Amino acid sequence: MSSSMSRTLKIGIIGYGPFAQFLAKIMMKQGHIISATSRSDYSHICSQLGLTFFTEIEPFMDADHDVILICTSILSLSKVLKSLPIHRLKKPILFAEVLSVKEHPKDLLLQVLPEDFDVLCTHPMFGPESGKDGWKDLPFVYDKVRIRDEEICSRFLQIFKDEGCRMVEMSCEEHDKLAARSQFLTHTVGRVLSEMEIESTSMDTKGFQKLLQLKESTMKNSFDLYSGLFVHNRFAKQELKNLELALQTVKQKLLERMDDALEDQKDS
Amino acid sequence: MSSSMSRTLKIGIIGYGPFAQFLAKIMMKQGHIISATSRSDYSHICSQLGLTFFTEIEPFMDADHDVILICTSILSLSKVLKSLPIHRLKKPILFAEVLSVKEHPKDLLLQVLPEDFDVLCTHPMFGPESGKDGWKDLPFVYDKVRIRDEEICSRFLQIFKDEGCRMVEMSCEEHDKLAARSQFLTHTVGRVLSEMEIESTSMDTKGFQKLLQLKESTMKNSFDLYSGLFVHNRFAKQELKNLELALQTVKQKLLERMDDALEDQKDS
Ligand SMILES: NC(=O)c1ccc[n+]([C@@H]2O[C@H](COP(=O)([O-])OP(=O)(O)OC[C@H]3O[C@@H](n4cnc5c(N)ncnc54)[C@H](OP(=O)(O)O)[C@@H]3O)[C@@H](O)[C@H]2O)c1
Ligand SMILES: NC(=O)c1ccc[n+]([C@@H]2O[C@H](COP(=O)([O-])OP(=O)(O)OC[C@H]3O[C@@H](n4cnc5c(N)ncnc54)[C@H](OP(=O)(O)O)[C@@H]3O)[C@@H](O)[C@H]2O)c1
Repeated sequence: MSSSMSRTLKIGIIGYGPFAQFLAKIMMKQGHIISATSRSDYSHICSQLGLTFFTEIEPFMDADHDVILICTSILSLSKVLKSLPIHRLKKPILFAEVLSVKEHPKDLLLQVLPEDFDVLCTHPMFGPESGKDGWKDLPFVYDKVRIRDEEICSRFLQIFKDEGCRMVEMSCEEHDKLAARSQFLTHTVGRVLSEMEIESTSMDTKGFQKLLQLKESTMKNSFDLYSGLFVHNRFAKQELKNLELALQTVKQKLLERMDDALEDQKDS
Repeated sequence: MSSSMSRTLKIGIIGYGPFAQFLAKIMMKQGHIISATSRSDYSHICSQLGLTFFTEIEPFMDADHDVILICTSILSLSKVLKSLPIHRLKKPILFAEVLSVKEHPKDLLLQVLPEDFDVLCTHPMFGPESGKDGWKDLPFVYDKVRIRDEEICSRFLQIFKDEGCRMVEMSCEEHDKLAARSQFLTHTVGRVLSEMEIESTSMDTKGFQKLLQLKESTMKNSFDLYSGLFVHNRFAKQELKNLELALQTVKQKLLERMDDALEDQKDS
């Protein structure tokens, strides 16, 4: 086997939505062999791209993958995993996943998978929008939750290294803590601005232009994704409270200034 | 007089804070003759730059300016204008101002200035931070509130045209409506993020990096400036309400999803 052949992985993707399609393109470009299955029928776009699409889960499980990569929505993960006919797999393999929360899939995978299956939890911190010009220097977070076959695991991680990602090893818990204060907060601000229906004006400042871009890019993600960041990250609720509190503090300071100004008016 | 000589203006700046200093540098570079007065003593930095600083207001008023340019904080404008010995001016001249709200200075200037003084209300939609690499294509909003000496007014506007600003003529009311939904909102988001003490992590998304930049640039402005955007723009209060409401709507949608997820758990 040539060295490039030996690096080739047979990857089976479960959940072929926007993010999985985005990942699959790069993986195919690198020479990996990709197949996919999903709730909806993607056989048409898959045949165009040259990857196998399974409408039924059983033949997908029979297809002898090195890695099964879970790319379903956060909210559907539990249902999807519990309906998987794991007993159809001929041997224990690596399960990897890319959900934007990490403790939840970790817990579920350890729950549903037999003890001799490997588990790699990952979060590529970019998407079809922010990663459209390549993945160079973009953070890829991962936690080797239960890895015995180091060879397969490192070949999988190599996919992201080869694209130039900044590899960040971190526990699922630490990820969720940080993500609640950064990614969830960012999406929340984007959703709030969208709810306000902010629009470009003839006199946008550079700062306002940043907010408009943030609104646009946030709204390209599904509401399933956004609400998953909240429902299945136990640190998110507190950050939402912190955001509300911070807004109230800022408002309070403004109202105090308003009172001062009214006082000054009376005095003059 | 050479054409470049004839374009030279004698500009007297009242309020020599960060924004006035930023403007003065460009005006001097263009060959205009600048002097300044302020509450605090800036004679040292002014003498270094080669402009005259008046610690007393009377000699400043005697100095035969073509334009008096008001650059004080929004909150102090009323006090500053009311204490100006306007009677010391030998002839009616142009009063221009650059405050980040527009109806308030317009009303005050029309109130304190004799009828034969010209009034130009402007808002350069950039500052020392966003305009540090030049003013090209940055919006300059203005309202020719009361102009008889078109020549002086257009020479003043030419300062901003020459730097490549996008000139946007608009009523003060229209400005305040739009600015409440754009600039005030942007500063509010920046202040809220600062109140939350968000910090860079090892796994920042591009969106979160935008928020960090917004926080940094917002906090470079004084709280006087920010609170002025609220206290003296009659449209800002409603936009603050809209922001609170939008956050509540987004939160409500998240809590509904949380309930759905709990229901699903019970069912399975
Ligand atoms: N987009 C990004 O920027 C990004 C970045 C990093 C990580 N991620 C993670 O990647 C995953 C996929 O994200 P996404 O952007 O493609 O959108 P998403 O809305 O989070 O997930 C869409 C996927 O979930 C499947 N799905 C949804 N509900 C289902 C259900 N009830 N039963 C079975 N399958 C269901 C969809 O299947 P069908 O299409 O077949 O209906 C589709 O494959 C998510 O976990 C997300 O957190 C996304
Ligand atoms: N910074 C920007 O990006 C920007 C952009 C466009 C327009 N503007 C407008 O430009 C003006 C100046 O802004 P800025 O950024 O320099 O900061 P600012 O905090 O809004 O204003 C500072 C100026 O106000 C004066 N001032 C404050 N309180 C005073 C008082 N009680 N009595 C007399 N003078 C007082 C200060 O005088 P001393 O320094 O002498 O104490 C200083 O000259 C504001 O109206 C602002 O809205 C600013």
